[in-house]
Amino acid sequence: MKFLEDIATGEIDELGSHVFTAEDIKRFASAFDPQPFHLDEAAAEESHFGGLVASGWHTGAVFMQLWTGYCRRRDEEMAARGEAVARFGPSPGFRNMRWLKPVRAGDVLTYRTEATATRPSASRPGWGLLSIAVTATNQAGELVFAFDGTVFLERRPG
Amino acid sequence: MKFLEDIATGEIDELGSHVFTAEDIKRFASAFDPQPFHLDEAAAEESHFGGLVASGWHTGAVFMQLWTGYCRRRDEEMAARGEAVARFGPSPGFRNMRWLKPVRAGDVLTYRTEATATRPSASRPGWGLLSIAVTATNQAGELVFAFDGTVFLERRPG
Repeated sequence: MKFLEDIATGEIDELGSHVFTAEDIKRFASAFDPQPFHLDEAAAEESHFGGLVASGWHTGAVFMQLWTGYCRRRDEEMAARGEAVARFGPSPGFRNMRWLKPVRAGDVLTYRTEATATRPSASRPGWGLLSIAVTATNQAGELVFAFDGTVFLERRPG
Repeated sequence: MKFLEDIATGEIDELGSHVFTAEDIKRFASAFDPQPFHLDEAAAEESHFGGLVASGWHTGAVFMQLWTGYCRRRDEEMAARGEAVARFGPSPGFRNMRWLKPVRAGDVLTYRTEATATRPSASRPGWGLLSIAVTATNQAGELVFAFDGTVFLERRPG
């Protein structure tokens, strides 16, 4: 990650895309959210969704998967250029998590973050808090998932 | 689930407990949140956590696991007594998700919900919205995780 002071409000990071296969949807749901419309095509067709949909927790966990991968790649690029890399984490909490449209088998979700605020931490010297607006859109360009996240981020030393 | 009209504000459901083993913490993190303090004991000891901790998304997904299991068992009991069972889901969103304390390897979290509000749905005839305050406490009785959830729930027919 960049240091807190090096992030401008409005800055957007494109985290990449993820295909929600029927197999992935069922695997996650079997472990954590075994409701019929996440597990079984026939039962899902009978539900008000009219077909298999991903667990909302799955949609959220995939954000984390893409975000950590994005940050790792960027950290490696920064390190390769000889730049100092800021540490980040954990998150004290998220707000306003919204599942706006169903995520169906075969849907491709594209995730991005927008930096909405930075401020020094009162409790952790040398650290600050980065606020981000997280969104995921499907292949039709529809907003399907969003939340407001906050994460501890190291301040630029000195 | 009980029908919307049969749930009283303040009603508490004890969902049960879950042990976060080091193996489980690492398995979830490998798939969705591969940060060093979720994956590797030695790296975690060097982090500000001072030891292996669960991903926040893991703590959340375990709520869903326990809640769906609790609801299924209660539905079966209601059906065995000859009572009608209400359908529920999906959730339009959650608010105020807070990770208040680290969840460490070996921690036992106890999850509960409290009904905080019920109201008819404007968009789905025959359905309402149930609001719940979700909490998880560890074996020391400390509140470690909380959020405010909302879920669609069927209204009593007729």
